[in-house]
Amino acid sequence: MELLNSYVDEVILRALHEDITGMDVTTDFLLDEAHESDAYLMAKDEGVVCGMEIAKRVFDLVGGNVDFEILVHDGERVKYGDILARMHGRTRVLLKGERTALNLLQHLSGIATETRRCADIVSGTKASIADTRKCMVGIRAMQKYAVRSGGGKNHRFNLSDGAMLKDNHIDACGGIIPAITQLRQHIGHMVRIEVEVRTLDELREALTAKADIIMLDNMDCDTMREAVAITDGRALLEASGGITHDTLRAVAETGVDIISIGALTHSVKAFDISMKWGGEPSRA
Amino acid sequence: MELLNSYVDEVILRALHEDITGMDVTTDFLLDEAHESDAYLMAKDEGVVCGMEIAKRVFDLVGGNVDFEILVHDGERVKYGDILARMHGRTRVLLKGERTALNLLQHLSGIATETRRCADIVSGTKASIADTRKCMVGIRAMQKYAVRSGGGKNHRFNLSDGAMLKDNHIDACGGIIPAITQLRQHIGHMVRIEVEVRTLDELREALTAKADIIMLDNMDCDTMREAVAITDGRALLEASGGITHDTLRAVAETGVDIISIGALTHSVKAFDISMKWGGEPSRA
Amino acid sequence: MELLNSYVDEVILRALHEDITGMDVTTDFLLDEAHESDAYLMAKDEGVVCGMEIAKRVFDLVGGNVDFEILVHDGERVKYGDILARMHGRTRVLLKGERTALNLLQHLSGIATETRRCADIVSGTKASIADTRKCMVGIRAMQKYAVRSGGGKNHRFNLSDGAMLKDNHIDACGGIIPAITQLRQHIGHMVRIEVEVRTLDELREALTAKADIIMLDNMDCDTMREAVAITDGRALLEASGGITHDTLRAVAETGVDIISIGALTHSVKAFDISMKWGGEPSRA
Amino acid sequence: MELLNSYVDEVILRALHEDITGMDVTTDFLLDEAHESDAYLMAKDEGVVCGMEIAKRVFDLVGGNVDFEILVHDGERVKYGDILARMHGRTRVLLKGERTALNLLQHLSGIATETRRCADIVSGTKASIADTRKCMVGIRAMQKYAVRSGGGKNHRFNLSDGAMLKDNHIDACGGIIPAITQLRQHIGHMVRIEVEVRTLDELREALTAKADIIMLDNMDCDTMREAVAITDGRALLEASGGITHDTLRAVAETGVDIISIGALTHSVKAFDISMKWGGEPSRA
Amino acid sequence: MELLNSYVDEVILRALHEDITGMDVTTDFLLDEAHESDAYLMAKDEGVVCGMEIAKRVFDLVGGNVDFEILVHDGERVKYGDILARMHGRTRVLLKGERTALNLLQHLSGIATETRRCADIVSGTKASIADTRKCMVGIRAMQKYAVRSGGGKNHRFNLSDGAMLKDNHIDACGGIIPAITQLRQHIGHMVRIEVEVRTLDELREALTAKADIIMLDNMDCDTMREAVAITDGRALLEASGGITHDTLRAVAETGVDIISIGALTHSVKAFDISMKWGGEPSRA
Amino acid sequence: MELLNSYVDEVILRALHEDITGMDVTTDFLLDEAHESDAYLMAKDEGVVCGMEIAKRVFDLVGGNVDFEILVHDGERVKYGDILARMHGRTRVLLKGERTALNLLQHLSGIATETRRCADIVSGTKASIADTRKCMVGIRAMQKYAVRSGGGKNHRFNLSDGAMLKDNHIDACGGIIPAITQLRQHIGHMVRIEVEVRTLDELREALTAKADIIMLDNMDCDTMREAVAITDGRALLEASGGITHDTLRAVAETGVDIISIGALTHSVKAFDISMKWGGEPSRA
Repeated sequence: MELLNSYVDEVILRALHEDITGMDVTTDFLLDEAHESDAYLMAKDEGVVCGMEIAKRVFDLVGGNVDFEILVHDGERVKYGDILARMHGRTRVLLKGERTALNLLQHLSGIATETRRCADIVSGTKASIADTRKCMVGIRAMQKYAVRSGGGKNHRFNLSDGAMLKDNHIDACGGIIPAITQLRQHIGHMVRIEVEVRTLDELREALTAKADIIMLDNMDCDTMREAVAITDGRALLEASGGITHDTLRAVAETGVDIISIGALTHSVKAFDISMKWGGEPSRA
Repeated sequence: MELLNSYVDEVILRALHEDITGMDVTTDFLLDEAHESDAYLMAKDEGVVCGMEIAKRVFDLVGGNVDFEILVHDGERVKYGDILARMHGRTRVLLKGERTALNLLQHLSGIATETRRCADIVSGTKASIADTRKCMVGIRAMQKYAVRSGGGKNHRFNLSDGAMLKDNHIDACGGIIPAITQLRQHIGHMVRIEVEVRTLDELREALTAKADIIMLDNMDCDTMREAVAITDGRALLEASGGITHDTLRAVAETGVDIISIGALTHSVKAFDISMKWGGEPSRA
Repeated sequence: MELLNSYVDEVILRALHEDITGMDVTTDFLLDEAHESDAYLMAKDEGVVCGMEIAKRVFDLVGGNVDFEILVHDGERVKYGDILARMHGRTRVLLKGERTALNLLQHLSGIATETRRCADIVSGTKASIADTRKCMVGIRAMQKYAVRSGGGKNHRFNLSDGAMLKDNHIDACGGIIPAITQLRQHIGHMVRIEVEVRTLDELREALTAKADIIMLDNMDCDTMREAVAITDGRALLEASGGITHDTLRAVAETGVDIISIGALTHSVKAFDISMKWGGEPSRA
Repeated sequence: MELLNSYVDEVILRALHEDITGMDVTTDFLLDEAHESDAYLMAKDEGVVCGMEIAKRVFDLVGGNVDFEILVHDGERVKYGDILARMHGRTRVLLKGERTALNLLQHLSGIATETRRCADIVSGTKASIADTRKCMVGIRAMQKYAVRSGGGKNHRFNLSDGAMLKDNHIDACGGIIPAITQLRQHIGHMVRIEVEVRTLDELREALTAKADIIMLDNMDCDTMREAVAITDGRALLEASGGITHDTLRAVAETGVDIISIGALTHSVKAFDISMKWGGEPSRA
Repeated sequence: MELLNSYVDEVILRALHEDITGMDVTTDFLLDEAHESDAYLMAKDEGVVCGMEIAKRVFDLVGGNVDFEILVHDGERVKYGDILARMHGRTRVLLKGERTALNLLQHLSGIATETRRCADIVSGTKASIADTRKCMVGIRAMQKYAVRSGGGKNHRFNLSDGAMLKDNHIDACGGIIPAITQLRQHIGHMVRIEVEVRTLDELREALTAKADIIMLDNMDCDTMREAVAITDGRALLEASGGITHDTLRAVAETGVDIISIGALTHSVKAFDISMKWGGEPSRA
Repeated sequence: MELLNSYVDEVILRALHEDITGMDVTTDFLLDEAHESDAYLMAKDEGVVCGMEIAKRVFDLVGGNVDFEILVHDGERVKYGDILARMHGRTRVLLKGERTALNLLQHLSGIATETRRCADIVSGTKASIADTRKCMVGIRAMQKYAVRSGGGKNHRFNLSDGAMLKDNHIDACGGIIPAITQLRQHIGHMVRIEVEVRTLDELREALTAKADIIMLDNMDCDTMREAVAITDGRALLEASGGITHDTLRAVAETGVDIISIGALTHSVKAFDISMKWGGEPSRA
């Protein structure tokens, strides 16, 4: 996994500390410390899994010594009934970690699944699916990892690693060209510059200013097609705003390079995964 | 607001530090430090707002001196076009805080809106809508606040403040009655005990054991109606599992006391709110 | 142990960082890194031990590789001279961890010992001994664990997981009945409601309002006995205020369910334990 | 106050976050946000107050806008019934901060009171009362401040700012003289060196080695008197171990310079202070 | 200033907590809490100042109420004797904040001064001076801010916001072209790709692969001049490695776009600034 | 190593989190997770190494399983070309940890090298080299460890563990003698008192007041020699201010006990160390 171990631990511990402020008043009073169980994780829907290493790490942090075998890896497709992991360990640990592991796993798999669905829709076109900064607090790097697991690409991580000029920036500088000119004087050479445009005139201005990427904000497909023709490879084009599953293919076919979708991370539907107790069922 | 200021600040700062690791390379290079703007927040959908004080606090933490007037308060209903807040301040601060404020506000308003929708559906029955522990990491208290803002009630906050016996607990103790008996010997007097049951026989056992609350796990409405009759007020009954907007009213009419819905917090659809620049439009 | 490992580590590290801001200027300059020693922990009083796993963990966190054998477990009674644990490891590690381990162990054992003493006094009555929120900052979960180790029960952990109506709450709502009525409309179904009363009239009001628990604030034993008779099992009764070792048995015999004692955690006498160097003495 | 504001805030916030994990389920549901109250703090015992600024700061951090007037300052003596502070503000804030403020104030005043009592006992001798490293985790700087408020002096803060040779150190180096010689070669010139001795022979050795301070470990008064005579001002002498209120004066009269008492911080009896609601009573 | 307030505070508080673990044993025991003083900051060398707002904030965080007037702003040139700021406030606060304020101010001004010096040397060429990731831990954003204050540009902030292919990456992929091809398939569209080359053949390969930036690693000026000719504007060229004040101008005149210098942040000479007590001297 | 493991980890993690906010966009996209490499650290200058254990720990924290063999230990002298450590492990881990490991190692070795150089210059005199509080934020304990590794001694760690009277303190108390008298009444017995003096008259006053250490502030060698004669062993003498390599020997020969040099930690020149890939070269 590409995330820093210590970042993953920090997120998990934040979750565990919310969920156990003193003790588990049910489990600790009822289950003997030595009691052990088998359990397994089962997909209850069709989609793409993300967060298996993270789920495994949850049990390490709760108290360790859980034998957790990952059967399906991040980015792989699953269908209803697929067994994702098998585990064996102290029942107290399994019970205390269950909710935290599932909360993370279901959220990240929900992102990966939706990203995969969008990526499949645009498959065969040159467009790639990208996320945005419309993320949940504290887990942005995880969410962006889930987008990659689902076959999407990451837009800029934050305000510090990519420049994006919006109306305000442009108005304050007196137009796209003076804005980009001013920016190039100061900005580091590793930072790309993107400009939001709403009309083809603005697009032409952005091209003149040699913007690296141009975002076509809420344009219809005809206009975007025209934008692609005008641009002719001089900049990357990003479509953004109001794109649904129904319109996604058409947008991709206009020839834009990137389609960014805020809902990938701001309106996630948890992917349904159950933790079942006992030995794994025979899969005959 | 009922949340601790320092908790709110902690969440906001975590978000800001993810979003600005060095500087805002667009804004800081293009906008003069003294440049000021007007802006306002506008609802782009119909629903219930939550997180207005939090959004306001974001700008304080970015750099202060923003005049932020809250026009709609948490828990109030809005429709498309309603102005939620007006603000005036340094443009740099407004631009740097925009995404963080909207991310939080849209998420919490999404929860409040969906909770309100569910609460409206069951209106007139004795049932109340409750959340679960299926929460996003690090913002559980905020999410549960949003549920309250939408007219829902909070289930237990975590594993430490409410006892919930599941199959594993019961099996390990040899049945519901011995499990609850053992638990009462140890548990603090301020903690309520809930038992998950799947059959009416288990329900009867739980009643004999004087469980405070009994959760009817994935039962159909007829069985739940029978459960209500058998229970006859001796315990609170909670319906849980597989409940949709379509079945919610019927479930409520069985006479259960609580209907808990994980999706309130685990599958949130962001409520659409825009930050518009310039003076507020006339509302005539 | 029922506490989260990461919580225990956090407390220990906070202590270690207070105690070693740079280096141990005595030990690091005088003792060779390879130098090893034997040591053991010995009780120097009669009581109940608590914190053995925590003490062991201190040495892991200082630098590991200490062989630490726990001979007496949390909750067990010891007398003067009992050996609680044997350890062997690098002398630098043993010396640097000694004070932190003892500070925690002596404090928690002090709590367990005093709780055990109170629990023994009320033994045979139906009363149980409970703690309060009068805790030391940062170690509340540890202190409450120590109370359980000493045979006591935990009162609510904090303001979020149990409702307790005091004069102010009641006055603001116009009486006990309206206050509880209002509270029931909003509060989650997993939260119990306790009311403080000072007179038998208030007790009757609280019973009418169906309070779950009623706290008899600073009542004399005769009044409490009358309260028990009036209540007749309709609510749990908690005695609180001004109870000493001398009066504790009499209070318990009034028939109350819970006796809560702030001093268990706010006025702890450290239980005397020594760390002795060298091999453990023969115990003949 | 001599403590860093940010340190004080950190301690208070740690306490508040333990005490309010979500909301105050009693207060927030019953009391209107605008409801205001008067309250005051009253001593219920005789002693020395410490922590008034800290108590005041608690209410700032809960939610501010509390008018908190300090009437008695840290280090001042009070008697039963003395009013320590008056406050006015939102009732929600007062109720949420009450326990945290009192927990800190009572603990620190307990330390100051006991230190003052010891300091009074040795008054007129040259001995001063000192604390030790037997402190509660996370509040060591506060506890040592309370010791100063009660007229005591601070021993070394931790293992990094003062050298103290114990048996192990001495044995590992082959005696007091080689140990101190070795230490002087490495240790910074700002660090004082103290040696624990158990016999007058060891004392003589320590004097030869030019120890800055010599700790007389568990010696009887006659031996200490002899130690004072032998030392004749060539080093400071510290008495330590098994000293009670009954023996304290006699120990001080042997002529030692410092008497260190672990119980000042490890076995604190909370000083009884009440938060009373309503206007302050007339004090006629 | 472009840095987040909360980031600046975090750095300052880390410094203050290292410098004051309990109290200021000199100042707190000697100076009355009400004692006030005037002081001023004076440059004792010629250079560029950076960190004035940060220095001011130090005193706020120590205890506030210091009237701190900034006379010279970040990025401005100063000469020996220039007064940078005047302050008036409680002497305790001024004394406790002095070292922390100066440590930060001198370090950042040292960076700005050296960057300015380098930028002046290359002035008139198209080359800009850039920093590297060879930064001090915990203050990278501050150091990069200082580079900007001195007229330099920021290279990538970290491993997440810019791609830089070194030998290992290239070898593992079988050459520059396959490496960049593979990278483009996965990497976000906002991230620029830089390749390190050591020969002109590698340069040509990098150009074919359409690298955004090409780093000329330790090349001599003749080779760099040739590289500029070959590249002919198709990529940005960065010179790096072994560049001194003596060779800097010549390197810049080869026509490269960026000259990156690790020493700007890894080998900083503190810029000498004194905090003088008393009123500011007349500047006649 | 004398530093707390958890402190070292905290510093390293702070560095890693600055350097990897999401992923390593070069390495993670190009190198297979299983790819392994050999590498070694080589000195590229002559000096003293410090931070080897810290560098090793970096790779553990990035992702573990790196076989890291330390060949040269902290405090040892090396010359150009010496191999300091060999390592073998996953290439991703080696690449992600490289910069953080080198940044720390080069900085600490830079301090150790310069300290060693100064210590060698004064070798044979009674003077020792000491650091100051002019440290980098967040790594003071590491920097002071590096000073010790280079053969220097540590001055006071911070404002809490040593008293140092400057002009302001003295003026506020009406002179050196009243200041020290007042301080002795309050200060703990483990704290040494140092006084800054600028003239021989002040020196005499400080001696009368029995200061433990006297700092000769910016005195010339003749005056310092006189100061040594006057003092005649009654206090330690510290020379400070404006001392360069050229004057250092002469200062040491005046007979002062300590020479403190701020530049050891405030103006560190990184010691050049390379991480080379592949097997270690034969050293024949």
